[in-house]
Amino acid sequence: MMTSWLPSLITETPEAGYELAVKLSRLAVKLTQPDAEMREQLRPDYAEDADSLIAVSQVVATHFATVAAANNYWRG
Amino acid sequence: MMTSWLPSLITETPEAGYELAVKLSRLAVKLTQPDAEMREQLRPDYAEDADSLIAVSQVVATHFATVAAANNYWRG
Amino acid sequence: MMTSWLPSLITETPEAGYELAVKLSRLAVKLTQPDAEMREQLRPDYAEDADSLIAVSQVVATHFATVAAANNYWRG
Amino acid sequence: MMTSWLPSLITETPEAGYELAVKLSRLAVKLTQPDAEMREQLRPDYAEDADSLIAVSQVVATHFATVAAANNYWRG
Amino acid sequence: MMTSWLPSLITETPEAGYELAVKLSRLAVKLTQPDAEMREQLRPDYAEDADSLIAVSQVVATHFATVAAANNYWRG
Amino acid sequence: MMTSWLPSLITETPEAGYELAVKLSRLAVKLTQPDAEMREQLRPDYAEDADSLIAVSQVVATHFATVAAANNYWRG
Repeated sequence: MMTSWLPSLITETPEAGYELAVKLSRLAVKLTQPDAEMREQLRPDYAEDADSLIAVSQVVATHFATVAAANNYWRG
Repeated sequence: MMTSWLPSLITETPEAGYELAVKLSRLAVKLTQPDAEMREQLRPDYAEDADSLIAVSQVVATHFATVAAANNYWRG
Repeated sequence: MMTSWLPSLITETPEAGYELAVKLSRLAVKLTQPDAEMREQLRPDYAEDADSLIAVSQVVATHFATVAAANNYWRG
Repeated sequence: MMTSWLPSLITETPEAGYELAVKLSRLAVKLTQPDAEMREQLRPDYAEDADSLIAVSQVVATHFATVAAANNYWRG
Repeated sequence: MMTSWLPSLITETPEAGYELAVKLSRLAVKLTQPDAEMREQLRPDYAEDADSLIAVSQVVATHFATVAAANNYWRG
Repeated sequence: MMTSWLPSLITETPEAGYELAVKLSRLAVKLTQPDAEMREQLRPDYAEDADSLIAVSQVVATHFATVAAANNYWRG
């Protein structure tokens, strides 16, 4: 039995929340392009391109907003 | 009688919510380009292009924000 | 007397809400390019282009967030 | 004395709210490019380009979200 | 001692809120490209390009959403 | 032991909140392209390009929305 790849949006710290946002950003890419080898080939196309890196950062920002709201902004 | 393709935004788990966000992202493409064969032809244009995959991920992030809010972030 | 093209954001179902989001996305295009013939000419430019279809999907996602919030996510 | 170009975000109807969102989208362009003649020259660049029209629609969607929230979604 | 360049998100009117959103949009550019002369050189690249102006308008829309929420939409 | 790079979303002032938003924007780039030398090489690609600077500003705007909400808009 597979374990869930997204058991919860709740994290202990903002830092862990940010890492979850990064993971959520990557998930959509995997679901759209399931071939791991192809994804590996594409890596230099975005990891060495300023505009692509900014676009990745935009996706992370959108997911981080969701994760932060889920955690009530870790106001404690 | 057709069944609804979007009966509810409520899902049992965050993972199912993410999958719904992916489905919501694809729906707009289908409604704008109803020809399934044409969509199939376009598939390599985005599935093998880093920037397109990032853009898909951005759409999923926007829908996931909505689905997560609908589910009160699955806070349980 | 013209009837309103946007009498309400409230819909009975999520599906009808999604269709309203699609309609809201197209409205801005009509208001910016009122010439129907020109819009028809532009149609292949986006309906047969993967990146344009993804961009359309992004606009729909943004409007769907608004419509879903208006309907309190059809929580029932 | 100049009258305000944005006295309120409150509108009577969703339709008027959408029109306000279109106005808000255009305002930023005017403030960034105050030369009306230049703006007129640029008009065909976006009004006859599918991707530009979609981008305009995205800006309107973002402002409409704000106006709709301001009006409590015209729930009545 | 320097005065703060962002003492508050609260403004008296929607119009002043919009102007603050424009200012917030420009701040990130200044922090990323601190060289004022370089920024001046880049000005025609966006002020005379329709797609760049639309992109500026998108950033302003995002900040305006924040400022409007901060001011409880100036509901009065 | 490493200290956290994101201990909290709470800041004393809007200005400090904006600076945190800039930091959050850059974090995703670092996590996607961990090679500092490569990032340095890419710097002119975005710092001297108007559209890239606008895109950076968009990411900052998205994070600032989150930080501002976390701080209840510093309403005091």
